[in-house]
Amino acid sequence: MFKASENGTGHLAPKHTSRGPAMRSGRLRLNSRAKSRSSARLAKLHDKQSERDYRELRIDKVGVRGLRFPIQVRDKARLVQNTIATIGMFVDLPKEFKGTHMSRFIEVLNAHGDVIHVENITDILHAMQEKFHAATSHIEIEFPYFMEKQAPVSGKRSLMDYVARFDAAACGNRIDFVLTVQAMVTTLCPCSKAIAAFGAHNQRGRVTVAIRSRNAVWIEDLVAIIESSASSELYALLKRHDEKAVTERAYQNPVFVEDLVRNVALKLNHHPDVSWYKVEAENYESIHNHNAYACIEKP
Amino acid sequence: MFKASENGTGHLAPKHTSRGPAMRSGRLRLNSRAKSRSSARLAKLHDKQSERDYRELRIDKVGVRGLRFPIQVRDKARLVQNTIATIGMFVDLPKEFKGTHMSRFIEVLNAHGDVIHVENITDILHAMQEKFHAATSHIEIEFPYFMEKQAPVSGKRSLMDYVARFDAAACGNRIDFVLTVQAMVTTLCPCSKAIAAFGAHNQRGRVTVAIRSRNAVWIEDLVAIIESSASSELYALLKRHDEKAVTERAYQNPVFVEDLVRNVALKLNHHPDVSWYKVEAENYESIHNHNAYACIEKP
Amino acid sequence: MFKASENGTGHLAPKHTSRGPAMRSGRLRLNSRAKSRSSARLAKLHDKQSERDYRELRIDKVGVRGLRFPIQVRDKARLVQNTIATIGMFVDLPKEFKGTHMSRFIEVLNAHGDVIHVENITDILHAMQEKFHAATSHIEIEFPYFMEKQAPVSGKRSLMDYVARFDAAACGNRIDFVLTVQAMVTTLCPCSKAIAAFGAHNQRGRVTVAIRSRNAVWIEDLVAIIESSASSELYALLKRHDEKAVTERAYQNPVFVEDLVRNVALKLNHHPDVSWYKVEAENYESIHNHNAYACIEKP
Amino acid sequence: MFKASENGTGHLAPKHTSRGPAMRSGRLRLNSRAKSRSSARLAKLHDKQSERDYRELRIDKVGVRGLRFPIQVRDKARLVQNTIATIGMFVDLPKEFKGTHMSRFIEVLNAHGDVIHVENITDILHAMQEKFHAATSHIEIEFPYFMEKQAPVSGKRSLMDYVARFDAAACGNRIDFVLTVQAMVTTLCPCSKAIAAFGAHNQRGRVTVAIRSRNAVWIEDLVAIIESSASSELYALLKRHDEKAVTERAYQNPVFVEDLVRNVALKLNHHPDVSWYKVEAENYESIHNHNAYACIEKP
Repeated sequence: MFKASENGTGHLAPKHTSRGPAMRSGRLRLNSRAKSRSSARLAKLHDKQSERDYRELRIDKVGVRGLRFPIQVRDKARLVQNTIATIGMFVDLPKEFKGTHMSRFIEVLNAHGDVIHVENITDILHAMQEKFHAATSHIEIEFPYFMEKQAPVSGKRSLMDYVARFDAAACGNRIDFVLTVQAMVTTLCPCSKAIAAFGAHNQRGRVTVAIRSRNAVWIEDLVAIIESSASSELYALLKRHDEKAVTERAYQNPVFVEDLVRNVALKLNHHPDVSWYKVEAENYESIHNHNAYACIEKP
Repeated sequence: MFKASENGTGHLAPKHTSRGPAMRSGRLRLNSRAKSRSSARLAKLHDKQSERDYRELRIDKVGVRGLRFPIQVRDKARLVQNTIATIGMFVDLPKEFKGTHMSRFIEVLNAHGDVIHVENITDILHAMQEKFHAATSHIEIEFPYFMEKQAPVSGKRSLMDYVARFDAAACGNRIDFVLTVQAMVTTLCPCSKAIAAFGAHNQRGRVTVAIRSRNAVWIEDLVAIIESSASSELYALLKRHDEKAVTERAYQNPVFVEDLVRNVALKLNHHPDVSWYKVEAENYESIHNHNAYACIEKP
Repeated sequence: MFKASENGTGHLAPKHTSRGPAMRSGRLRLNSRAKSRSSARLAKLHDKQSERDYRELRIDKVGVRGLRFPIQVRDKARLVQNTIATIGMFVDLPKEFKGTHMSRFIEVLNAHGDVIHVENITDILHAMQEKFHAATSHIEIEFPYFMEKQAPVSGKRSLMDYVARFDAAACGNRIDFVLTVQAMVTTLCPCSKAIAAFGAHNQRGRVTVAIRSRNAVWIEDLVAIIESSASSELYALLKRHDEKAVTERAYQNPVFVEDLVRNVALKLNHHPDVSWYKVEAENYESIHNHNAYACIEKP
Repeated sequence: MFKASENGTGHLAPKHTSRGPAMRSGRLRLNSRAKSRSSARLAKLHDKQSERDYRELRIDKVGVRGLRFPIQVRDKARLVQNTIATIGMFVDLPKEFKGTHMSRFIEVLNAHGDVIHVENITDILHAMQEKFHAATSHIEIEFPYFMEKQAPVSGKRSLMDYVARFDAAACGNRIDFVLTVQAMVTTLCPCSKAIAAFGAHNQRGRVTVAIRSRNAVWIEDLVAIIESSASSELYALLKRHDEKAVTERAYQNPVFVEDLVRNVALKLNHHPDVSWYKVEAENYESIHNHNAYACIEKP
């Protein structure tokens, strides 16, 4: 399950992680010159990062990026989904300090379980603030997400892939949480349909929706809003009767890229929990080698 | 030459484009069913885009994206540089209209010369406002940019590649112009140098600087600011004595990713023309498989 | 665990998949016009793909590509690792037939468990041959793979990410199986060290090793061969004493990209099970904006 | 113009390069510690690369990769086209030597004009053999390429972008030259058209054709072969009557990905100069989030 909420507390996953994506079986690469020793016996090393800086420039965000990490998230049906995230973690750095101790980001991440659980996001943000004595902390988590679908006629099941993303920040006690979902859809051009004697150009399009919300919103719910706004949703598995159905459905529901973002925005305007959104659509036009793009952002 | 200015008028290139990157020699693919006719003799086709829309939702940006196009820009030495841009063009769409006539973006682009000249940006923005009856227009142009360098000891010349980008928008008569330059550099870790008995880890890092400016600023000037803020600049061609020089230079100038953004920000703070900036640095750490990142934005 | 073997039988994972990365909880999107019906009641649709083709051209490979799918693989410690694969599946198409029934690839994939198990690869290849009446079948599976490491001095544990890939093909009863592993490493330039008064340029490098083998070879074993051939291996988490250790280790073990591929090739030459290999290394040089590359392929 | 020929001599461009994509106006970054001196006065530095290697392993390919460089090529209309290439250059390394002098690749490249001319490829290959005392040399050059098109009804002109690539190798006096062209097209699904009451799914597809040839073959000729094999070619600029024409054309010319590669292969089989080819097509299916792929290679 995946929820976006301003406090993030909706993101719960089982604490026991023995089913985790990565093994923890104590495998060690023993380097002859790399034996673990008590740090007491190690010489004190200079702490360059903690030196005083005199440039009088606060740094807005400093941290690590492009870190790949297995995570667990729960889907709406309450079972766990394992996936692989790309993670960024950042804090601010006061003007007095020369540098940040980057390894602590990884320690914070590791401290929250062998496998990161998304409900830990608020905890992770506060742990970053504490460990770095930082006023603000940020975490970005992006990952592929799968949902099972049934083909429209045959009922055949298959997995459809999406991309989801959390951008969470703590400023003091305030948490800002943005959930982004990206879904691919079919779009069929209303102009092409209106003017052509037969057929209409159509193509794969990508819709990206970012929201802030008063209460948790499921990834699944954003996907449903996106897919119901397009000419047709996509499927991994379609038999011939299904292909007939989606072809005809798309032809009967032509949408410009403009229609697509408006359809999504309209539904988000009526959603009781969504307080802000940005909706983008990009069509990989089948008649051009460039894309059509539209964007609406709720002020 | 490349300049960023709020009115964009600094970007001048010769009007004659016969030396252009693409040929215009009248090559035609003659399709039997595709002869050019006077539009008077063509049946009037339904204008789907101009239909009234009732969703009451203005679209912030709608247009084309990912369009590849040869452009000419002038380098600081006043000679022309040919390169290949990736372009986005957008306007707003009032809530009354169903769609945008996407082909007009390409017509605007083509109307400003066989090869787009960067000094045309303001003209292009206003032409978009006019042609689309739009309140706002936007253009994004990103391209590789080359500068010749001499190796520090041998003096051998070679070309170094950068990425530059214009993000320009018109809102009524007001033009907003952001110049972004991306340069790769060497960074050598001050902590690693301080604690290791010999050597210090170093790596390629990417610095991205976006500015707004009161007067035109050269791409070359931003590159110089970035490269002088790192442990060393990069070169395409280094002979052995050069390699010795840059190795030692980097070792003598260790910088954290934090130092790098501060060094750049400090110089931009003192630049008479720069009114806003965002400086980002990302190090492809040679001891990790993730990156170190820092960012300062001038409020 | 991950093994490469010519018969693929080494890739075993538990058959029960209740712990799977994706939920299978019967979630259905009910489309009003998309109810599942018995196919008996559906009109027979024309089978375009099965039409006779007269171009007299056999197609070498036809199928699906870029399919994202959660998979389970076992690590050397015998526990299961969940990851996300990008999959391609192909068969040959005899000259008599116009087309391939693409949906059958997805059905074959789904038929081998909710979550694909890598030990199924031979089964999947044969199932493809059977379902498509094909002489040859191919499957490509690429995925991120994680291994836990201990930092060399502090002993702190963290996850390191790799990329692994299977390329398997069946031609009649013969199975060809190629295991590819990609690992990032540190390389420190021997020339730079030899000529500079202090320091030496170093950088992240990418090593890609593809093998055919007589018996199963673990992914972990290829990673160990790669990492022990570089100036240093990488870690996600290094404390200050660790950073000192890896900095010094890299300085004491300088390798050119040429040394790196030779070191790996030498070990593979002595490996009892490896019958063929291709070793590539690419260094993201910290003093250039281009890469150094070397490749050895065993004939 | 672009030609593929086994001796590469067809690739001619004017020798005078004053119109070059990059400026050569003597701009120097003067580093105080980087003045050019006569190498006679520099201390002799150790030549690590020339040391004897004892691992008894010849390296197949070693060199530089990912080098960006402005190049000039001629289009079929005999005028020059400027573009930006990504270049790889490699030689073999005998088992006796520890390393390669990487800077020499850049010197070879620079020695053939301020701007590389594609007709120089054979010269460059031989220069690499000579400078490195190598038995074999390789060069890869990939670049965007533009062709002007007229819209099918309005006759409006616009530029369409392609990707072209040279892979050339010298082994002794023998030159092997492969020309690769990548073009995007429209494909409309014959099955979808046959079974749906109205409409048919269609999408952007990518066709990649690599050839060896007895005589020079134009890039333009390969593009024409590809585009005439698809449901429709793409255009950057289409007015409403054009959009009607291409929509209807695609509907009247449905092709599977299998048809596309067969159509291209059939034409290449009949081409008098083509001695080998590999044809690949990949459709970004508008009803799936994975792609359909087909490949034919001439034995």
